[in-house]
Amino acid sequence: MVNRASAAVPIEGGRFMVIGGASLVGSATTEELLARGAAEVRLFDNFSFGSGDAIAHLKDDPRVTVVQGDILRLHQLLAATEGLDGVIHLAAFMTLSMDRDPWGGLDVNIRGVQNVLEACRASKVKKLIFSSSNAVYGYGPGVKGDLVEETPFFSVGAPPAAILYGASKIVGEQLCRDAYRRHGQDYVVVRYSTVYGERQHYRAANALYIVETHDAIKRGERPKVIGDGSETKHFVYVGDLARANCLALAAAATDVAVNTSGPAPVTTLELVKLVAELSGRPDLEPLLVEPDPGKVRLTSGGAFRIDHSAAKAAIGWEPQVDMREGLRRLLFWRDRNTV
Amino acid sequence: MVNRASAAVPIEGGRFMVIGGASLVGSATTEELLARGAAEVRLFDNFSFGSGDAIAHLKDDPRVTVVQGDILRLHQLLAATEGLDGVIHLAAFMTLSMDRDPWGGLDVNIRGVQNVLEACRASKVKKLIFSSSNAVYGYGPGVKGDLVEETPFFSVGAPPAAILYGASKIVGEQLCRDAYRRHGQDYVVVRYSTVYGERQHYRAANALYIVETHDAIKRGERPKVIGDGSETKHFVYVGDLARANCLALAAAATDVAVNTSGPAPVTTLELVKLVAELSGRPDLEPLLVEPDPGKVRLTSGGAFRIDHSAAKAAIGWEPQVDMREGLRRLLFWRDRNTV
Repeated sequence: MVNRASAAVPIEGGRFMVIGGASLVGSATTEELLARGAAEVRLFDNFSFGSGDAIAHLKDDPRVTVVQGDILRLHQLLAATEGLDGVIHLAAFMTLSMDRDPWGGLDVNIRGVQNVLEACRASKVKKLIFSSSNAVYGYGPGVKGDLVEETPFFSVGAPPAAILYGASKIVGEQLCRDAYRRHGQDYVVVRYSTVYGERQHYRAANALYIVETHDAIKRGERPKVIGDGSETKHFVYVGDLARANCLALAAAATDVAVNTSGPAPVTTLELVKLVAELSGRPDLEPLLVEPDPGKVRLTSGGAFRIDHSAAKAAIGWEPQVDMREGLRRLLFWRDRNTV
Repeated sequence: MVNRASAAVPIEGGRFMVIGGASLVGSATTEELLARGAAEVRLFDNFSFGSGDAIAHLKDDPRVTVVQGDILRLHQLLAATEGLDGVIHLAAFMTLSMDRDPWGGLDVNIRGVQNVLEACRASKVKKLIFSSSNAVYGYGPGVKGDLVEETPFFSVGAPPAAILYGASKIVGEQLCRDAYRRHGQDYVVVRYSTVYGERQHYRAANALYIVETHDAIKRGERPKVIGDGSETKHFVYVGDLARANCLALAAAATDVAVNTSGPAPVTTLELVKLVAELSGRPDLEPLLVEPDPGKVRLTSGGAFRIDHSAAKAAIGWEPQVDMREGLRRLLFWRDRNTV
């Protein structure tokens, strides 16, 4: 890690673009940028996964511009990055989409990052924040204990799409490192754990538990838990991530990758019970069911915890919202926004 | 791993294509296929790394056809794979080339594999042998002890190009697994350790020690060893790999990845001394030098050994040529073929 005073990009008065902006993390990050006084925020999205709903509440802010574009079309990125101080690159296929279309997923997660880096160089963008994932530590029984930034990539027994996703994020991170070495492109890699929060979608394999549990409870059904419920998940609240993205821009840090995760991990069983309790139906006891072998599942063998202490050291970030409070906000939002 | 009788593709009377055929491993594999009675061998190469010299001795065999083509051009692969029983896919950027051109390297190592798989499916090729690498275990101090097929990918401290290379091979392997799951494409992944042998080139970071040592000795200079010479390398003789490729085709095994490596690892110091001895100049003692920070180097921290016992179980392969004999053959070839 190299720390240079020049790598700090103040949010106040700055011009930014959020790529994959019409998304869960994108909309929250945009809110945070605006709240911190950004002069301009461009939301770049091809709207294949993103939706107008996710950014409807932002469009009336005169500082916000929506750019419909595709990161596979370099010329669109070149035009869209002109005059920017910083770019937050979120657009990606996650595991479920990678399973449906690996060809498209590798294009977006690898060529897409190359195009973003080329555009940042051409437009002299001062700093790039690249959203990576704890998927760079992989899956399966090897993933246990404290996961730190040096943890290797485990893959034995994982479905191809999960490994392709994790490997594509490793590639994306290294493309950033390479750009820093070749032409001094400042960047911070923020490795997200499983994100949840208001405007939660159905595309993230691990966060599906929350929305599926909530849906079942609203139908008056007992929520399902696959397996024995002892599997660990380590979520992070979307608002905490939005703050991490802003701190990563504003910090002096560059050429570094940091974990972001919530205050503590939960087991699947704890999570489902918490959702039932917060939905006012603690009586609906979780139903343990056998895994469906046809579905892509990401199993973690042992208990693990994603250590986020390096993020504090590098960009001054710590999570503020615990699982109970974050879930409360998400469920409140869902109750008001779903039929 | 699934074993099906139908996954065995006999070499005798079969029609094959070696992609990246005009190469060290390609030419040796072609020789082996011809010796085992193949009816036809197509050598597919774009000649960007490959050379006519590497296959000059094969061109006169009426069973051999040279196809100049590029794996990034799917239509060329579709035409070239028609009527084939098996494909051996070797074409790739290794770490040094990946460092020079990461964009091109990721195209070839990822999109190239996708194109090869698409062509195999369209042309109903029975089995694909995909050349992977022990680079899927990564680099640095984590890489130690016995490396087995389940060893995770370590990357801390490695240069971006080395990680990009390893990750691209992980992606290529998973694309094969994905093709097997989606449409039953039989395949075997052969993970090569550092290859050496007749027609050795200057492109492989680890095998450079052999050719550079030999060159220095022929100039009457003491050969250089970077660091203290205790670093482990585990080579495999090219003829043994050619045999592994043929056995992988002919075996019933499918949907499996196996290591291939020589009988035993050596330290860099042992290797350099052996080259000096076999070159008739044991008096030229190795000179220990500091690493050049500007060059891409792949350091292994501790001692390691690449376990090849799974290859014996899956495809009946074991190495036959030890380091002394393989080096003797390589140096003999170099003395006759270089000025």
